[in-house]
Amino acid sequence: MSIPVLRTAEGWWSVTSSGRAARIDTAASSTAGLLADRDAVAAAAHRDGAAGLVDVSTLFPLSPVTVPCRVVAQMTNYSSHVRDSGMNPATVPLTFFRKTSGSISGPFDDVIRPGHVRLLDYEVEIGLVIGRTLAVGTEVTEHGLASYVAGLVVTNDVSARDVQLPKTQFYEAKSYPTFTPTGPVLLVLEDGDHDRFTDLRLRLWVNGRSRQDSDVTDMIYSPVRALRELSRFQRLDPGDLVLTGTPGGTALKAPPKPVELIGSLLPPATKWKTFFRSQARNPRYLKPGDVVEASIATPDGALDLGRQRTVIREGQ
Amino acid sequence: MSIPVLRTAEGWWSVTSSGRAARIDTAASSTAGLLADRDAVAAAAHRDGAAGLVDVSTLFPLSPVTVPCRVVAQMTNYSSHVRDSGMNPATVPLTFFRKTSGSISGPFDDVIRPGHVRLLDYEVEIGLVIGRTLAVGTEVTEHGLASYVAGLVVTNDVSARDVQLPKTQFYEAKSYPTFTPTGPVLLVLEDGDHDRFTDLRLRLWVNGRSRQDSDVTDMIYSPVRALRELSRFQRLDPGDLVLTGTPGGTALKAPPKPVELIGSLLPPATKWKTFFRSQARNPRYLKPGDVVEASIATPDGALDLGRQRTVIREGQ
Repeated sequence: MSIPVLRTAEGWWSVTSSGRAARIDTAASSTAGLLADRDAVAAAAHRDGAAGLVDVSTLFPLSPVTVPCRVVAQMTNYSSHVRDSGMNPATVPLTFFRKTSGSISGPFDDVIRPGHVRLLDYEVEIGLVIGRTLAVGTEVTEHGLASYVAGLVVTNDVSARDVQLPKTQFYEAKSYPTFTPTGPVLLVLEDGDHDRFTDLRLRLWVNGRSRQDSDVTDMIYSPVRALRELSRFQRLDPGDLVLTGTPGGTALKAPPKPVELIGSLLPPATKWKTFFRSQARNPRYLKPGDVVEASIATPDGALDLGRQRTVIREGQ
Repeated sequence: MSIPVLRTAEGWWSVTSSGRAARIDTAASSTAGLLADRDAVAAAAHRDGAAGLVDVSTLFPLSPVTVPCRVVAQMTNYSSHVRDSGMNPATVPLTFFRKTSGSISGPFDDVIRPGHVRLLDYEVEIGLVIGRTLAVGTEVTEHGLASYVAGLVVTNDVSARDVQLPKTQFYEAKSYPTFTPTGPVLLVLEDGDHDRFTDLRLRLWVNGRSRQDSDVTDMIYSPVRALRELSRFQRLDPGDLVLTGTPGGTALKAPPKPVELIGSLLPPATKWKTFFRSQARNPRYLKPGDVVEASIATPDGALDLGRQRTVIREGQ
């Protein structure tokens, strides 16, 4: 059975079956270190009696993924989001980009919108936390996946669309500080948990209203496909984070195909000006003060990555 | 005056004004460590007498940039290459993407073409080697640039065009192992050297025939502009590498605008099939056995980053 782990300023905690938190007896200061100390994680989770257990609500969780680490993300990986982006799910290739690990922030930290950004968007995503070195050239099998993916986290792949679209490369637009709220829970997986992956439901709310709500059956390229493709060129190490794409419901909606084709005839500056003017009237982009909540869990709660809550703040 | 530094399996070497190499008395095992030991670099470069000096030709240089490090690259940053890519130099934005540091290889190592890649291309680029931490939010001035850019290297931003173009994100196509041959020289800059930056001439040959030959006056966004934009979102640390874009002359040439517009009306699979079929007849892409040489220097040799020589080999 999976073990929910929290990280606070005081250290690491396992959440027991009774729903209380037990301090993990470990010297680990990084996620990689913690994952190497699985016995301590399990020992805390299965501690007998209530002595020394604390109420989870008294803890202030930080990102359970520590930095620095690699943050690799999959582009358009849910049919519903591919359609939102004006592409065809049948032909979209399996594609990766990087985010800075400096963009990782806590599950209850503010998200800072840089002063030059107007079209701030959200993307709830399942994050895979790597538990074992994946060397370039490794053959990843369905059966072997469990040894590489040690845990799961909720992430929000925050995106500055007015930077992302004209620049075409996603790196900067998704890498500003606080653009990857992560956690609260690091769900450490055990035997059999991977079988429940496709039952996970991803949800995101803005100011209490549902914006994204989808399960994994909508996913195009599974984690095993992703790691297999990554291992063609990308070494991964314990503690690294792989984001697996977001379902539909983002603020961004691509214009209808005929409008896009007309756009491709315009000079880029004119095209983007027109596009941004139309998007500025779209009330779904995030504004200072907006509250974004995101959760990922199976309907029966067997796998539960918790719920994060961040508030948008204006940067400089 | 600038100091050429080499790295071999034995350690680090300064090249003296007489053109011979003196072992640097340092315990540094990383580029960051070496750059923190500037006195030792200078002491070796200015060593008196010939005792202990060796002939440079007896050394086998490795990449003078050690891994892991961040590798950040600028997209389309020379007017000539922007035109080759079918874009307009007046409107191309300042854009970054990442490469894996696992792609860094030595200046005389083979470049391995993965088995699934057919359109292998070259891009000679000036690499900036960072010498001081650049925190997010740092104000970078023209005058302050010298403190962040400690050195320069020759790099080849090897690119699998048949991966890069359909995926749109450049990350994978430029990140396979051996896709960033680096060196031979780490040119450690001293006061005044930065003023000569725009005199640098970049050259690349395939099997002895010139393919790229351009100076920096063709560059669109200067290093100070690049670091200023990077510091909006990207922390850099000593030993990190920033590639500054390539001039025209790559194997890839974008189709004329009317052809491209017709292409945008086709389904993606058909479009790419047609494009790759036309590119397969282009003899400029790199084939196994091809020899790629690249050099960067000022015409008077005051700044000289050396010349690398790599051979293309077939991978699996």
